[in-house]
Amino acid sequence: MRIARFSIDGNVAFGAVEGDGPDGLVLDIIKGIPYSEFELSGTKVPLNKVRLLPPVLPNKVVAIGRNYAEHAAELGNEVPDVPVAFFKPTTSVIGSGDAIEYPSFSDEVHHEAELAVVIGRMCREVPRERVKDVIFGYTCANDVTARDAQKREKQWARAKGFDTSCPLGPWVETDLDPTDLAIQATVNGEQRQLGRTSDMIRSIEDLVVHITEAMTLLPGDVILTGTPAGVGPLHVGDEVAVTIEGIGTLTNKVIKRG
Amino acid sequence: MRIARFSIDGNVAFGAVEGDGPDGLVLDIIKGIPYSEFELSGTKVPLNKVRLLPPVLPNKVVAIGRNYAEHAAELGNEVPDVPVAFFKPTTSVIGSGDAIEYPSFSDEVHHEAELAVVIGRMCREVPRERVKDVIFGYTCANDVTARDAQKREKQWARAKGFDTSCPLGPWVETDLDPTDLAIQATVNGEQRQLGRTSDMIRSIEDLVVHITEAMTLLPGDVILTGTPAGVGPLHVGDEVAVTIEGIGTLTNKVIKRG
Repeated sequence: MRIARFSIDGNVAFGAVEGDGPDGLVLDIIKGIPYSEFELSGTKVPLNKVRLLPPVLPNKVVAIGRNYAEHAAELGNEVPDVPVAFFKPTTSVIGSGDAIEYPSFSDEVHHEAELAVVIGRMCREVPRERVKDVIFGYTCANDVTARDAQKREKQWARAKGFDTSCPLGPWVETDLDPTDLAIQATVNGEQRQLGRTSDMIRSIEDLVVHITEAMTLLPGDVILTGTPAGVGPLHVGDEVAVTIEGIGTLTNKVIKRG
Repeated sequence: MRIARFSIDGNVAFGAVEGDGPDGLVLDIIKGIPYSEFELSGTKVPLNKVRLLPPVLPNKVVAIGRNYAEHAAELGNEVPDVPVAFFKPTTSVIGSGDAIEYPSFSDEVHHEAELAVVIGRMCREVPRERVKDVIFGYTCANDVTARDAQKREKQWARAKGFDTSCPLGPWVETDLDPTDLAIQATVNGEQRQLGRTSDMIRSIEDLVVHITEAMTLLPGDVILTGTPAGVGPLHVGDEVAVTIEGIGTLTNKVIKRG
């Protein structure tokens, strides 16, 4: 099932994305919060009448660097012995269709297409064989990065945590085998990144075990699993799209910060 | 004014800390949330009858590394050209009296006494002369760090983000000049760290400008301003106390993770 979060006429709700009929996709509004058992209300709204919001409201976003060998190499980095884990703040999260605001402290903002794992249950110290049980689903992410600031600043809070640097969406796909999916980024329709999730150095199981060895994850928390090769600059006016096989496309325009 | 957050008989509230009479400190319960104008209810409870909670509910904690020259030197680090900014997740926040749980992935957990700045207003791109307007007050923090993991892992999400690694408290002092305060850490009553906030390399104004150049801060967000020299190991059974002149003492016991 595909679960979106959206606003219409000032109301915010979750909805199940359905159909592909003559009127396009529709949303069947969900009663309550979708992380546990929920009901569909039967009330449907056309997707093209709503504003998509980030499909989750994370308490935290844990991101992983250098998890595809070709990407580590393109930036001159070695594959790390231990996963490189950092946070993106909730104030950086936007949805599909929202604008990426080019920050004033950078002249080199890059796209990074990533598979995002959405957590469904509060968990800590998750054994490898239980990882599947704590995952709610998957969505597309763009780990937008101020590459120049990342090089200058030893820790990446600003470089990867500025407002609008974490597009997520368009929705969460709950029925998906994430182990070998095509993942792609285009800028203005031109392909820039193309990889397969099977090229991840650490698997999703590895990452959940590693992260929850240290900290509790909450329903709605997100893990970004690293980006394949082909990262590159974004400029004001660009439209960047992250597409993951079996999920959909996350699209964001780049604007000047107002 | 000193503002604490506490629970009593299953209810959670903010309260103003008052008096030092024959019955000790009392809390005058606050109606609502204290970040804007608020009223005292006049209903008072003795401080020794409540459980203190973290005095704020941050959306994010932004911490600064290597902001005291002697501390940078004691770990063999140079003073950085740009502030080292990283996040601690909300799942790491505990209050005074709560236990620090020694994590399984580390054999070298250190205390780091720090002055914490509590933000009172949503803000971004704060000009230096307006920094005072966005600060709600100050509290004590312990930036508990798995030093071995910090050395092994290039980014510090696990080393400084594990559960219970961010004690804050005991309360927020809203009337305080933070520029030259004694800051101290003791372990089992023995002094380990002693410094003055006047020795910070970057001032609170510098840090707020630097952070908000990139990201929005929300009411209740916290900035940890770095630790003076004298950091050292904590062991299960230790009691660590952070005392800052004009604020009070944040005390936490170290226990084995259950």
